[in-house]
Order: sequence, then C-alpha cells, then structure tokens
Amino acid sequence: MRYRTLIAYDGAAYYGFQRQCAGQPTIQSELERALAQITREAVAVTGSGRTDSGVHALGQVVSFTARWQHDVAALQRALNANLPQDIVVLQVEEASPTFHPRYDARRRTYAYHIYNAEVRSPLRRLYSWYVSRPLNVDQMQAAAQCLVGTHDFATFGQPPQGENTVREVFQAGWRQCGDLLVFEITANAFLYRMVRSLVGSLKAVGEGAWTVDEFAAALRACDRQRSAAVAPACGLYLVSVTYDL
Amino acid sequence: MRYRTLIAYDGAAYYGFQRQCAGQPTIQSELERALAQITREAVAVTGSGRTDSGVHALGQVVSFTARWQHDVAALQRALNANLPQDIVVLQVEEASPTFHPRYDARRRTYAYHIYNAEVRSPLRRLYSWYVSRPLNVDQMQAAAQCLVGTHDFATFGQPPQGENTVREVFQAGWRQCGDLLVFEITANAFLYRMVRSLVGSLKAVGEGAWTVDEFAAALRACDRQRSAAVAPACGLYLVSVTYDL
Repeated sequence: MRYRTLIAYDGAAYYGFQRQCAGQPTIQSELERALAQITREAVAVTGSGRTDSGVHALGQVVSFTARWQHDVAALQRALNANLPQDIVVLQVEEASPTFHPRYDARRRTYAYHIYNAEVRSPLRRLYSWYVSRPLNVDQMQAAAQCLVGTHDFATFGQPPQGENTVREVFQAGWRQCGDLLVFEITANAFLYRMVRSLVGSLKAVGEGAWTVDEFAAALRACDRQRSAAVAPACGLYLVSVTYDL
Repeated sequence: MRYRTLIAYDGAAYYGFQRQCAGQPTIQSELERALAQITREAVAVTGSGRTDSGVHALGQVVSFTARWQHDVAALQRALNANLPQDIVVLQVEEASPTFHPRYDARRRTYAYHIYNAEVRSPLRRLYSWYVSRPLNVDQMQAAAQCLVGTHDFATFGQPPQGENTVREVFQAGWRQCGDLLVFEITANAFLYRMVRSLVGSLKAVGEGAWTVDEFAAALRACDRQRSAAVAPACGLYLVSVTYDL
C-alpha cells in the first residue's frame, strides 16, 4: 500500500531533508528509521522537495510504499511514537500507487521570518533572521509584487539538473506582525536557494541599499551574480504543497 | 552608579535565574560574567525574582552597581556583545542608589503557553506544554476568575522563608490563539511554583478531571496536597515587572 503523509519539523538539528552520508541526521533518514522499526522492512520515502540544512517545515508531503496491517491512524501514532520530538506526522492517508509527492505537486508555499528590532530576541533566534536596521516593509512589498507571474528566476537560484529556470509565482508578499516580518510566496516550483535569495535581495530593498527598480532589474538580468547574499536557513519554512487530488 | 536593566532570555539552557554551583550556567552568572568582562570588576546583579530552571523571560528586571564611563546605550551594546545569543538586554536605565528590583516591585505578570492539538508541534516543543486531550477553555477561564483578589494561595505554592502565603491577584485569564492557549496572570507577588501549580490545576479543569467548584475548593483548602501536578517549566514566561517609579 502507498501512503501520503503530511510532516512538520524543526530543521535546526538536521542536514536538510535528503539522506546524506552515514552519521549526518536528515529528515528522510529519521523517517526511514522509524518506518523500519515499525514495519521491520526497509522502506524508502520520497518528499515533495529537498529542504536545505536548517530549514523548517509546517507541511512537507512525504510518500512511501509499505506493508501495514492496521489503519492509517495507527500508522500515524506508531510513526510519531518512533520519531524524535522535532519531527511529527500530522496526517496519514492512503494514496494511489503512482502518487509522487514531487512530480505531482502543483503549488508550493514557503514562508520566511525576519525579526526586525533594535535588539535581538532570544526566543526567536532559532526561527527567524535577525535584522537590526529598520526595514521599509512598503518598499519590500512593492518589490515582491514584481515576482508575481511567470519569469526566468536565474538570478535567484539554480535549477535541478536538466531543468530550466522559469517558474510561475502565484502570490508573493510581506505582512508585519509587530517586530516580525513574514514573507509568503507560492509558486508552481522553486529553484535551489530561491526563497532565501529573494529574501536576501528584498531585505536589501527594505534597508534602502536597492531601489524597487534595481530589484526588478536584477530579476530581469537572469544573472546569479546579481542576487544579494542568501538569507539564513533558520528563517525559512516550507508551509504547504498542493496537488490536484 | 546604579543601573536598572530589562532582560529577556530563553531559559532552556539554564539552571534558572539565580547563581548556582560552579559549572551550572544561570542567567545571573552569565550577566555577572559579561559585566566583569566589560568593567574589569566583580559586579553582583539582583533580579526581580528567581525564575526556575527552564523558565523564560520577556521582561525580567535586573539591577547592579558598577563603574561605567560611557552612556547607558553603550553599556547596553557592550552587554549584548558579551552575552550569549539566548540572553539579551532590552533596555538600560540609571536607577536611584537604593533601587531594589525585588523589594520595590509592585506587580509581576507571567504567561503560560499550552499547545493543545491532536499531534505535537515540533516548532513549539521548546516553548509550550503539549497537551493532546482537548481542553475546555471556557471552564478554564471560569476557574481562573476564582483567583482574582486577595487569597491565601498555600495550595498552589511555597512562600520564601519567613513570608506568608497571601497574595493579591489583579487579573488572570486565558486566551486562545488557534491551537495555543495562553494564560496570563498579574499579582503583587508569587509563591514558588505558583503559576505552574495553577496551570497544572487549571488544565485538570480543562480536561474535565476537576469542576470549577473543585478548583475553587482546592484554593480555599490552603493545602499544598490539593494542587494538581505542576506544569512543565518550558511553557512559563516572566512577562513584566511593574514599579512605582
């Protein structure tokens, strides 16, 4: 039977989603370890995408094929009982035998948290990027609007091997919750490091180093050298992945 | 010169506020270490109260007397540059030579976070108490109202040596933000473990193990044995301390 699961994790302690060398803990290796414990078989899992080292997820979609005698609720409980506290299975469903969480995905939404205040916050340090200089959110919002639509995003990331750098962004924008600035972006797919490159460049707009026009010109240039430095991983969250079914 | 500072910290890595045996990191020992580095003198600090091991603070007040040639903004910057990332000085002011952050405090406010959902949250695990059974917030709110006023709180905590167990609660209540239940309570002062004992007992009301009347009777009993188990430290935050000046 093939299963589709919804997973959340705190990425701080992991070398990203994807299995790495032995001894480097990843989300995938923890899930496979828990599944092996439960099913007494080797089970390979596939995710909707590879979150980088330190990136968090609120709604990563992970699929696997396994023998399981009980219902999906029991599978969820068994997985959660065998996973570390910083990974949780939010939902388990039966899926079609051909379901693929990456190839079948239609939209992905990421969020990025910037903590923007005169002094840093001990309680937000693990889950946001601390920026002390005051940021102009209106300018950042204006720049974010340039992203909506189908564009070549070569400035802001690398494609997986063999793919082009054109992606369609359905929505992108900032909202302010006190000292927390939250960027949310939905696209059909993302390039490697794309959200963190965009946030690094939007922050340059917010602090006045770039104008909105300069941001738009950097996008049009399709030149990886034109991106600002990528924002740190700890502020990034994979929020959700959408499928047709 | 005497200084009054406002401090925030993530208590997870510390054995509480107060200095302990050598090798056990505390907020006080970190502050004193930073002050010694900056001023090249031994400086003793005093807090508004002793948060327990693992308890967080958004607005702890700490005072000390030190020789400092520059202004308070420079003192704040120097402290923050010498403190670990999980402790921050939010504000530094000059204080009267007799200012005492504990004896002069008029009101203290604590908050407690319960994460109440069917499955645990990896991103909230360090900063809230995870309760899976659905809690009835209306009943918890009704019980919290019994706390307002001047009462003997002997059921819910021990006094510092030589003090009685009567305290005045100015406000107490719950608010719900999605799956997060936030308790906030303001009193003239608190007994040891008082907020965590109250929350443990209010959670018993929320899950239906106690009625509101049983909670009120436990309060009236003035008997430490009548409290439910204390709630874990990681959900507790010292929010603010109020002074006449």
